[in-house]
Amino acid sequence: MREAYIVGAGQSAYGAFPNESYRSLFATAYEEAMDSAGGVDPEDVDEAVIGSLGVGGRQLGLSGPAVTEHVGLHGVPSSRIENACAASGYAVRQAVQAVKSGMADVAIAGGYEVMTDMSGDVAKYWLGVSGETEWERLTGTTFSGVYAQMASAYLDAYDATPDHFSKVAVKNHANGAKNPKAHLGFECSLEDAQNAPVVADPLNLYHCCPTSDGAAAVIVASEDVASSCDDAVRVAGVGAASERVGLFQRESYTSIESTARAAESAYEMAGLGPDDVDFAEVHDCFAIAELLAYEDLGFCERGGAATLIDDGVTELDGDLPVNPSGGLKSKGHPIGATGAGQVVEAFKQLTGHADDRQVSGATVGLTHNVGGSGGAAVVHVLEGGVL
Amino acid sequence: MREAYIVGAGQSAYGAFPNESYRSLFATAYEEAMDSAGGVDPEDVDEAVIGSLGVGGRQLGLSGPAVTEHVGLHGVPSSRIENACAASGYAVRQAVQAVKSGMADVAIAGGYEVMTDMSGDVAKYWLGVSGETEWERLTGTTFSGVYAQMASAYLDAYDATPDHFSKVAVKNHANGAKNPKAHLGFECSLEDAQNAPVVADPLNLYHCCPTSDGAAAVIVASEDVASSCDDAVRVAGVGAASERVGLFQRESYTSIESTARAAESAYEMAGLGPDDVDFAEVHDCFAIAELLAYEDLGFCERGGAATLIDDGVTELDGDLPVNPSGGLKSKGHPIGATGAGQVVEAFKQLTGHADDRQVSGATVGLTHNVGGSGGAAVVHVLEGGVL
Repeated sequence: MREAYIVGAGQSAYGAFPNESYRSLFATAYEEAMDSAGGVDPEDVDEAVIGSLGVGGRQLGLSGPAVTEHVGLHGVPSSRIENACAASGYAVRQAVQAVKSGMADVAIAGGYEVMTDMSGDVAKYWLGVSGETEWERLTGTTFSGVYAQMASAYLDAYDATPDHFSKVAVKNHANGAKNPKAHLGFECSLEDAQNAPVVADPLNLYHCCPTSDGAAAVIVASEDVASSCDDAVRVAGVGAASERVGLFQRESYTSIESTARAAESAYEMAGLGPDDVDFAEVHDCFAIAELLAYEDLGFCERGGAATLIDDGVTELDGDLPVNPSGGLKSKGHPIGATGAGQVVEAFKQLTGHADDRQVSGATVGLTHNVGGSGGAAVVHVLEGGVL
Repeated sequence: MREAYIVGAGQSAYGAFPNESYRSLFATAYEEAMDSAGGVDPEDVDEAVIGSLGVGGRQLGLSGPAVTEHVGLHGVPSSRIENACAASGYAVRQAVQAVKSGMADVAIAGGYEVMTDMSGDVAKYWLGVSGETEWERLTGTTFSGVYAQMASAYLDAYDATPDHFSKVAVKNHANGAKNPKAHLGFECSLEDAQNAPVVADPLNLYHCCPTSDGAAAVIVASEDVASSCDDAVRVAGVGAASERVGLFQRESYTSIESTARAAESAYEMAGLGPDDVDFAEVHDCFAIAELLAYEDLGFCERGGAATLIDDGVTELDGDLPVNPSGGLKSKGHPIGATGAGQVVEAFKQLTGHADDRQVSGATVGLTHNVGGSGGAAVVHVLEGGVL
């Protein structure tokens, strides 16, 4: 199997930019990615895969070609991939497949979403489309409501409290405060997080990620191309899986089986395990999701996530920093950009460009992107310092 | 580069089935594909790629996993790809990349659309999303209007008349009348086609494809798997390209550059040329599109399409039959299903299962799927009798 490498990565700031277009945000991310990829020029690009949920109905058809033509890539095969909030995690995986197949030497994987130029109700509708339609969305279950059901089940099953959700928020805001691209780049105290208004019991405002605008792009290349680039991070493992879209159809509410399966595949391809991971960017759309990720990714045993957060293991200076970027909670969650944006952070960490939030000695990084409440998941294991 | 083969293919009937769901239509196609693939079982499936424009807002997020879970494939990596009317042509290409990458031995590529359960105005809106948003759709240009501009330019540039559009309709209806899965499976006379009401001058009703419901699925497999299957068609060449989404931004109205580029790539990979093609399924969303395809695919020189149709070359018993299935015009055009459905027809032709519409001696087939007015195109060159 051909090797694939990440050789460049960039993102726009995440935040509320109602006057930006999906094209202008993507262009910002693409240009930063290209600038970071010394050795690759636009004319080298063989393929583009763009993740987006298509929130807001700007260009519902052909939005892949619409953003790539805007940055001068007309002609290049370009398509949109959608897997709810995992859209661009799957875009990265597809770009990796394109390179491994031999059909591309250089592939762009990106994503974008513009979400804040709508009234609150419309934004809620769009978020809801990531849930199951007939028995979740149409019966009034909001997306935070779905994760609240998982949170309740978790509190029931294990020795955990809502304070553990709040500690996730405190940690991720502490990291995001060091990230100039973060949407909510401020610190929060444990008291702030504990006392926030309830959104969907037991989840409060600080247990939920924001609705963000933004874009991200990464450049995936063959070994030949990568060996002439300034920086290269090896895609050691890739794993993906689906699961029943509706939560009510699943066997467990305290585990996301698609994550566990995706991680198993990614570790197997990489020949590495959770113990080898130096840091991870995980899908913390809600605080409970980060705790479930610790367990599904094998960072601890079932029910052990609360201890992991209590002991500070996943803090920036802990043994296994999680979400050094600030995660979805603080860095933000522009749906279609999120998965590629996690790989942007991993690339920066593994090439020593993460500035104030650099994880020291980071060699192996993991990214974990979830669609909906787990209908889809994708995991990448990335290795720096190989070429 | 690993070889990839089509080892099974199926489709629902195309037509107006407002009481069917996107899930039930996909299940019909998937089951026929599986039944045709002696040697492959559901548990062998490593990957699923589902094309859909998402018409009608049923399950806008995660509809890939939503249809694959319905046929028992939960767990399998599953995603939705969108490239307007080329969605599932790109899904097939992505499945081919998955197999060639070595990350999958068996990949399902499918597509679906349910379009007839909406009022006429809503359906028109959804079709319009395949056009460019700001300067086409929002200024009132319908999708037939976009192709009418191409048709006018073609009539201006070359020695062709609207009768040539009508002859395309007559040919494709003659073929579709032999296809039990066709939406408009009846013959039409040249007079019928000439005297139909105008839709967008110079295009009349018989120069436009219908709005259809339907689904299609193909099974792509590695050589190892294919060698133990009943039938196998080699994916000899794959090509894809994008182009500026808005027609007004292009250099030519009488050629779809993305088709020409995609064909060039596919022929190059296959080591074959247009002279080697025994039949083709081309994207005749409007009759002018079939004539442009003849030229962009290299079946004749520029301006030569009218002569090709006049001489009967592309009829079922001609030297180069085009759209033996009936094409989008007669077989129908359920947007997300169309590209995969073309590969279904090519598989049947190349394995000798096309019954009354069998192209005799067919060894090399070409499929050609266009997104919008050419913002995306994808071409497959398929070879039977190899394994």
